[in-house]
Formats: sequence, structure tokens, C-alpha cells
Amino acid sequence: MARIVMKFGGTSMAGIERIRSVAARIKREWEAGNEVAVVVSAMAGETDRLVNFCREASSLYDPREYDVVVSSGEQVTSGLLAIALQAIGVPARSWLGWQLPIRTSDGHGSARIGEIDTTALSASMADRTVAVIPGFQGLAPGERVTTLGRGGSDTSAVAMAAAMKADRCDIYTDVDGVYTTDPRIVPRARKLKRVTYEEMLELASVGAKVLQTRSVGLAMKENVRVQVLSSFVDEDGNSEPGTLIVGEEEIGDMERQLITGIAHDKNEAKITLTNVPDKPGAVASIFSPLADAGINVDMIVQNVAHATGTAPKSTDVTFTVPTADLARSLDVLEKSREAIGFDAALHDPRVAKISVVGVGMRSHAGVASKMFTTLGERGINVQAITTSEIKVSVLIHEDETELAVRVLHTAYGLDAEEPATA
Amino acid sequence: MARIVMKFGGTSMAGIERIRSVAARIKREWEAGNEVAVVVSAMAGETDRLVNFCREASSLYDPREYDVVVSSGEQVTSGLLAIALQAIGVPARSWLGWQLPIRTSDGHGSARIGEIDTTALSASMADRTVAVIPGFQGLAPGERVTTLGRGGSDTSAVAMAAAMKADRCDIYTDVDGVYTTDPRIVPRARKLKRVTYEEMLELASVGAKVLQTRSVGLAMKENVRVQVLSSFVDEDGNSEPGTLIVGEEEIGDMERQLITGIAHDKNEAKITLTNVPDKPGAVASIFSPLADAGINVDMIVQNVAHATGTAPKSTDVTFTVPTADLARSLDVLEKSREAIGFDAALHDPRVAKISVVGVGMRSHAGVASKMFTTLGERGINVQAITTSEIKVSVLIHEDETELAVRVLHTAYGLDAEEPATA
Repeated sequence: MARIVMKFGGTSMAGIERIRSVAARIKREWEAGNEVAVVVSAMAGETDRLVNFCREASSLYDPREYDVVVSSGEQVTSGLLAIALQAIGVPARSWLGWQLPIRTSDGHGSARIGEIDTTALSASMADRTVAVIPGFQGLAPGERVTTLGRGGSDTSAVAMAAAMKADRCDIYTDVDGVYTTDPRIVPRARKLKRVTYEEMLELASVGAKVLQTRSVGLAMKENVRVQVLSSFVDEDGNSEPGTLIVGEEEIGDMERQLITGIAHDKNEAKITLTNVPDKPGAVASIFSPLADAGINVDMIVQNVAHATGTAPKSTDVTFTVPTADLARSLDVLEKSREAIGFDAALHDPRVAKISVVGVGMRSHAGVASKMFTTLGERGINVQAITTSEIKVSVLIHEDETELAVRVLHTAYGLDAEEPATA
Repeated sequence: MARIVMKFGGTSMAGIERIRSVAARIKREWEAGNEVAVVVSAMAGETDRLVNFCREASSLYDPREYDVVVSSGEQVTSGLLAIALQAIGVPARSWLGWQLPIRTSDGHGSARIGEIDTTALSASMADRTVAVIPGFQGLAPGERVTTLGRGGSDTSAVAMAAAMKADRCDIYTDVDGVYTTDPRIVPRARKLKRVTYEEMLELASVGAKVLQTRSVGLAMKENVRVQVLSSFVDEDGNSEPGTLIVGEEEIGDMERQLITGIAHDKNEAKITLTNVPDKPGAVASIFSPLADAGINVDMIVQNVAHATGTAPKSTDVTFTVPTADLARSLDVLEKSREAIGFDAALHDPRVAKISVVGVGMRSHAGVASKMFTTLGERGINVQAITTSEIKVSVLIHEDETELAVRVLHTAYGLDAEEPATA
């Protein structure tokens, strides 16, 4: 007997037929004697519909009321799933965020989960009743409804698993696991059996959109064993094993690869500020106003300063921002032009970030140089480079994304023997 | 300064444009210095959509989960209205049923309102904040969500008005008030300025579907002044005065009419059991099994028993049931045939009930006889008659409904000078 949390996304909850097949899958785990809690998303498209209502009602909506509106989508699916479970003989009940309660911060619209009271829930589950919990929602200190931000149901599931001390947290998604890279680009991409939290964080934040990043961070912190697997099943109601996301210590040496995966992200734009004076505080004067504007700066590259003629030493600073924030970023920078003291703000939205990720590179040299060599041989120009302990990222021209991912996947020996599209 | 409750139905909440115009109307009351609480329905069609989800998920759904699902519609509109109010400079916040809380019985799906805690609400309203409250929902003793049954938002509004000791409760609807009869049948029907609770109850339960019957009963019990008025406004944002529903003592002698209105109802079917033995308990043996089956019996007519030849005394019993329940009723009666001891169960779904209603008839004789004379002159056959203190109802053939309503409306002097369709 195990305690498990199962989480189903919006596609799995889109309509009663699908909710019924989710119920059937839950029944299998329940019949095996497990204590089961289920976390559900709203029906696909529903949250968008509700968010649009709020935006239509006011461009500057009160986030507390927004939370009241958008949290209703998960309320509906949790009630419906409880009904569908009962219909096939599985005792079940819904527990809304305020009923448990799931305590959160009062950061409405993107609250952070605090304590979860599982007293009543545990008693109910011990009694063989499946608990159905709406994801994405919680309760602020002032007893008002909160939501966790888009994709927050993954975080709800991991937080529930941590609070319940669950043996594992199974996240059912549209994809059947985490791949070495995007299979749409590389047909020979391989599904990973295991991946570490750190690798998953790097893969997620650089474009492998399988799990919400926050949920992976929480899983790492709370040491929750997360499995990502497909919500679609074969004729016998079975699904293939997915990818297990675990601590580094759980991955045996035999399994450990130098590189775990290649990620890409086309949603970043490059900005280069030329001739920024080389003096203390210069960098802060660039990034503070961007942070104040809520703009998420990613790669930052600054070279050694150089002097031109008799002018004071200066340097060029390059960084990336989300493409959607490019115009706003340039605006913010223009307003701070005097404070920063740059010459020009060059910018290019047509870039892509390519990252190779793997905990194996901690103990192996040569990962970065193989990356540059491989790209160079294909004539792909590297515009900027950043590295972390388990990741090397480069910025290249957007049009070369697919080529770069393919050649790197082969170069690091990640290609499967057979294409996945069998 | 007054304390008022304003209630808006599903048509008024159907889409952001309409919610905006509801907000504008609330603003006028708020700017006049009033303390305002608003009770809202779900968007038109939304509750049906949610109910259908539940039915699709299971024909025998758990009413506790049904309540979780269907209460979400009002949650959405209350959040949206609060946003729309803030957008035009009116401080507002939503209070969900569990937040106040609105205590109810645990009769899920059709719970009855108990106590409403208005402490926090009153403080907030005294602070010039408009309270937006989802109708139709409450909280059961076990801290689970309840709903009040279809049309329950009217009851929520009246209960809020009673709990808040509001000066009045304005119910905005598709119609602009209570008429002497259905204006689609009688163009010269007149809008009533005032009507008593008792009359409204009789008019509502016999077919003038303006307010949920339960809400009128509650208003009478709690002595809440209810105004029914149109949610549509003229170019200046004004709406015509509607109909005030008040205690009998508030209606002056000058205004008091003999007859207040004529109601009709085609949704009843007639059943006659022939030769029911005239012995103690016979009537109970008919109606107990029907009550057990949840079938609402309305008119009951039993004549004096008569003996035929040497047979024991027997009588015919006629009554009406909702047309939708006719087949089920006949089934139930057939199963009890021996216990009841009737000969035949004659039945006819093609009947209509016509009622004349008015507190004035308490002090005036001749109301009933005028009804029979008027119908008789037009050759309309009366199949059954029942009377109460303020109502006379007859059962006639369905095809004669419109004719009967028209001639009675004229006979009791209710016709307006001009047709309402001006």
C-alpha cells in the first residue's frame, strides 16, 4: 500500500468523457489498495475564458476578485470528478482550497503555498475515500481565495504530496515524459527514465515545457518523487512508464550520462548596451529599473572593459529579455539612459537560446568546447555564452535553432537507435 | 440614507457588457449615499450547463458534489461584478457563501437558509464598500457548500435583506413588475403598483413566474419590502417604478381592489379516481403514496358520497398533478389500487387552472359567482373548483385558457384604458 498523489491537467479534464476515463485510471490505483489524492486542473480553455472575463471587466482588475473568478474552473472539475468516481463505485469527495485549508501567501494571482492542513483529509483517505482537490487555489491569511499563477496545479500537486508525505506524485500530461530534446525537432530524441531535479529545472526553464518550474523547485526542496507520464492509455488501460524526477543520489552511475538533454527557447530577445562606463554600480543601474518593471532578465554577458583612445574605460553589456517585453525594456532603458550612460541599445528579437544540460558535466571537462566545436563546424555563429554548474547556454540566430539542436543531440550521443515516430 | 439589497438575475449578468450596466445602476444607488448589498445570479445558461455536466457524469450524482459544481456560476459573476464596480470608482468586494457565512440546512441541492452572519459585511458596508454576494449558495453545518434549488437567488436576496434589516430589497428581472394577468394574453393587463405577500404567493404559485415562491414566503415571514422592477433602463439610466410587494396593512383602502389578478397554469393534469369507498383513511391512502413519490398534488376535489343501489357508499376524487408527473402518478396509483379500492383512474392532461386572486374578496361576497357566470356565458365548462380565502380556482379545458383569462380580466374591471403594447 502506498500513498499517492495523481495530478491531471486541463486536457484530461476537458469534458465528461475524459473525466470518466480519468476516474477509471484512479480506480486502478485505488483497487490496488493505495491511498489516493487527486489534484485537478480546470477544463482546457476554461481558465482562459475566465481570465478574459476579468480583463474585459477591467484592464486593472482587483487580483482578489480575479482569484474568486478564475478559481471556479478547478472547483467545477473537482466536483465532477468526485461524481464520476462515485459512479464507478469509488468513494470520493472534493476538498476545496478553503476547506482543507491550503494556506497561501496573500500574493493574489500568484500566491505561494504555505501550510496545508491534512488532518481531515488523512482521516478521510484512511477510510478508503479518494480525495479530489482543485489545483491552482488556496486561502490567504484574510480568508480570501487565492490562485497560484498559471500552471499552478503542478505546484498544488507537489505541495499536497509533500504535506501528505506521499510515496510519489504522478503528473499526467499531454506528453509521455521528459525527452532528451524536442521530438518534433529530433525524431530520434529519447525519453529519459530518470532525471534529477536540477536538470529538470534547467530543462524546464529553458524551454522543455512539461512541468511548471515552481513545482520542480518545490519537489526538490521537499524531496518529492515526481513522475511525469502520459494521460493517454492503451487498450488495456495501461500507460507506458514516464519519467521519474528524483534526487541525484537516486540515479545510479550506470545510468548517468554526461549530458541529459538539449533545450531551446525562441522566446528571448537580445539587447546590447554599448560603451557602458566601467565603474562601480553601472550594472546595477541597468538591471534595477528592469527588475522594478517586472521584466525577467535571463542571460547576462559582460566582457572585460577596454579603453578606446583617451576615453575612460567602457564595456558592452549583453542580456536577454522575454521577446514580449522587448519594447517595454527598451523604453525603461531609454528613461535610464543618463543614469546608465550607454551609447546605443542594440536589439534583436530573432535569437534563440540553446542549452546543453546534465549533472554529469560537473565531473567532466570538455562539454562546452564540444558544443562550440560542433556548432562551429556547421557554421553556426555563437553570439553569447553563459554557463552554470550543470548547463551551457549559447545565443544563436533563431533560424539555426533546429539545425543546432539536431547536431548537438548527435554529438553528445543522445540519438536513439530508432526514431520515436514508430 | 437607506440600506438596500439589489438582486440581478441571469439575463442581467449575461456577459461583461450587461454586468457593466448593472454596475452603473448600482453606482447610482451608492452615490445617493445608500449602503448597498448586491445579490447576483449566474450568467444566463451557465447553471444549466453545470447541471448538465453533473447529469452527464452520473445519473445518480452526489448532491454535495453537485452543489460544489453548480455554485461556481454565481461565484464567477460576483467576482466580475466587484471588478466592474471598482472600474467605475465604486469600492466593492465579493463575499462567497462560506465567507460570510450564509448558514443553511444540509439539504444539498435545495437547502434552506438558516442564520446569516452579517458582522463583517456590515462593517465593510458602513465603510462605503458595496458587498457583492453570490445568490443560490450557502454553507451546511459540516462546512460543505450548499445550493438553494433553482431560482434560489431570489431567496438569497430576501434572506440577506432580512439579516441586514434592509429598508428594501429590489429584485431586477426580465419583466418590469407584476401584472394583473399575462400581458401576452391580455394586452390591456395593468402593472400593479402594490401587491400583498399573500396575493403574490397565490399569483406566483398559479403561474405568474416573476419571483420564486419561497422568496415571497420568506419576505412575508420576515416582513421584507420587496420591489420587482425591470433591469432595463431608458436613455437616462432610469427604470420605471416596478411593483412593491408588502404587507396588507401597507395597502390603503383607496388602492385596494376586489381582485388583484388573474393567473393561469397549463402545466397541470387532472386525475379522477372513481368509486372510492367512503370510509375513514380512504383519502390518505390516495395521497400518501403520491407524496412518498415526491409528486406535488395541487387541487383536490371530493364530493359528498353517494350510494348506488345496494353497494356501499362511494365517491369520486379529482385532483391535479404536474403534467410531467402524470405517468408516474398513474403508476403509483395503480400499485395502490387495492389499498385505495377505486374503480378507474380517469386522466386528462389537457386542462388549465384559472385563478382569480385578491385580498379584497375576504370582505366581499360574489366573487366566485361572478367567475362562474362569466365563464358560463362564454360556454366555458368548469370541471372542478377550489377556493381559498383570497383565491378562487377552476379547472377548464386547456384550449379555452386565453378566452377565460380575457373575459375574467374584463369582468373584474381590471382592463387598462390603453393597451400596454404602446
